[in-house]
Amino acid sequence: MDPLSDVRQKIEQRLESFAAELLAYTGEQLPDAQPMVAQMVALTLRGGKRIRGQLLAAAAEACAPWTTVETAGIEVGAALEWLQSYLLLHDDWMDDDSLRRGAPTAHVALGERYGNARTGATLAILAGDLACALAQQTVMQAAAPVDRVGAMGAVFAEIQRDVVLGQTLDVLGSEDVDRMRQLKTGSYTVRGPLALGHALANGTAAALVVLRAFGEPIGLAFQLRDDVLGVVGDHVRTGKHARSDLNPARRNAVVMAALATMDDRRRADFDRLCRSTDDASVADAQAIVAESGAVHTVETRIAHACAQAIDALKDGSLRPSGVALLERLAHAICERVS
Amino acid sequence: MDPLSDVRQKIEQRLESFAAELLAYTGEQLPDAQPMVAQMVALTLRGGKRIRGQLLAAAAEACAPWTTVETAGIEVGAALEWLQSYLLLHDDWMDDDSLRRGAPTAHVALGERYGNARTGATLAILAGDLACALAQQTVMQAAAPVDRVGAMGAVFAEIQRDVVLGQTLDVLGSEDVDRMRQLKTGSYTVRGPLALGHALANGTAAALVVLRAFGEPIGLAFQLRDDVLGVVGDHVRTGKHARSDLNPARRNAVVMAALATMDDRRRADFDRLCRSTDDASVADAQAIVAESGAVHTVETRIAHACAQAIDALKDGSLRPSGVALLERLAHAICERVS
Repeated sequence: MDPLSDVRQKIEQRLESFAAELLAYTGEQLPDAQPMVAQMVALTLRGGKRIRGQLLAAAAEACAPWTTVETAGIEVGAALEWLQSYLLLHDDWMDDDSLRRGAPTAHVALGERYGNARTGATLAILAGDLACALAQQTVMQAAAPVDRVGAMGAVFAEIQRDVVLGQTLDVLGSEDVDRMRQLKTGSYTVRGPLALGHALANGTAAALVVLRAFGEPIGLAFQLRDDVLGVVGDHVRTGKHARSDLNPARRNAVVMAALATMDDRRRADFDRLCRSTDDASVADAQAIVAESGAVHTVETRIAHACAQAIDALKDGSLRPSGVALLERLAHAICERVS
Repeated sequence: MDPLSDVRQKIEQRLESFAAELLAYTGEQLPDAQPMVAQMVALTLRGGKRIRGQLLAAAAEACAPWTTVETAGIEVGAALEWLQSYLLLHDDWMDDDSLRRGAPTAHVALGERYGNARTGATLAILAGDLACALAQQTVMQAAAPVDRVGAMGAVFAEIQRDVVLGQTLDVLGSEDVDRMRQLKTGSYTVRGPLALGHALANGTAAALVVLRAFGEPIGLAFQLRDDVLGVVGDHVRTGKHARSDLNPARRNAVVMAALATMDDRRRADFDRLCRSTDDASVADAQAIVAESGAVHTVETRIAHACAQAIDALKDGSLRPSGVALLERLAHAICERVS
């Protein structure tokens, strides 16, 4: 079997078995908490590509044979999915998003279930807090030598701190968009998983330098691809509303590039369409973006970042089998359609 | 110097130096995030007794000489304070409390600063998330043998999971009040710190059994003392409004005991007074509770739990110097006035 598909499938199985145990426990011991736990679990299982775990596995294989660390690696890959659920649950409430991974967001679903939006918000925050604790617990229980578990735990906490600081800059509309993106998305999507794979496989200092040089542009490309998909992607595939990305306050890179091409009048038209919630206005706003050439501008940046990342791998510090997997993932991240 | 005062003072110093570093970093690198970070830091530094770190130190001393693990123990004691800030920041928003440790709660202060309650709520949740990450990071970087750091990391994650599940039961008004309290308060106030001290000092299995038998009643007594102080305490000392504890939805043990003594008419009077926000009504409600004898009922339960905890220490598995410290802390927890 293809090694990356194998990783994806094993993480999926791990998440499913853990979810079943957790739901059995809360169903029996804490039935009142069950709907909250069920929302958190369902969001996690709707996840999909498990790209972070694949990056972790590729980085580990670049430092030592994956098979020697696989059991713990799958655990930590699963932990990254709990971490992501934590961040999504909090972000979705903060951004007031209603759709995530093709289903209502947790604060909306729980608000409806209890007939009270405030209770929904409270339980969504708690669902995130629970996912955060599970992520930590999963890392700390991973079957690896204790020094590596400790190193992974430290990386994990650092990821978490960076994401929270990045989200703070985001909600406050900080001017420092690059810094915000690097902290918010780069850390837990690319930089963190690579550092975890390196720590798990006890890689050399030189290997970490190369993994960072690879991770920086790939983190950027991941975000830019998200931005392209958010504006012109198939919303059935992305599982999000296009309208939320069109909002200029979100500072989607495609929208920013499009705004830069507009005169004041067109910008006013665009703003009006973005504030509207009907599907026709969303389609019109998308058309304006499409005509502006902004997608092309951003696609060029993605292609450049991808080439830069792959180039960084060629320094000889990493094992060739790992380099091959990292290259594949670079293309998969830069060229994905959902 | 008295060993427990020494622990308290060293934790205080550690928190202060870490806070200064953090504020210097965000002030320079992420100035937009500074007000949120400053709220989180100020709440932590307003903390006071550092009772959790003292419990950790006493449990460690009961397993091995504290001086051999002190450096790491102070770090983990500081981590428990970041953890508490995390939980308070989220809880205060969930409970819509306006006062904490004698100052406005973070969501209120930040809402005023940005002129928007929603922004205040978002930043308070992020402040909690940041404190959570710092707690994890502090544990993972503690200067102890790696196997002990790993064991402490696992305990820490378990504490976090239990508290979140307990808070979920609380916000949903679960009937299972004992379970809720045991998960929500017991875990991070008493059981968790004792388990961390045990893990840090690499204690025996027998020692852990005794520490648990001590911790269970002390956790209950801590909560009951909180309940007494919440209703009849000096709110300048407790730093909270008495009115929030009088609300029957909070299920304060004193209020529950008082309600059990009332007939329907008196109960209706009491409910009306509790829903009112003026100081005279709060004083009248407090007077009704005082007359009911409920405080005496709860005080008897506290004295019983304290005696039970101290009795559990006498089995010979713990070092006498540690037992002496644990006894002192049991009295301090059961008899505190703030």
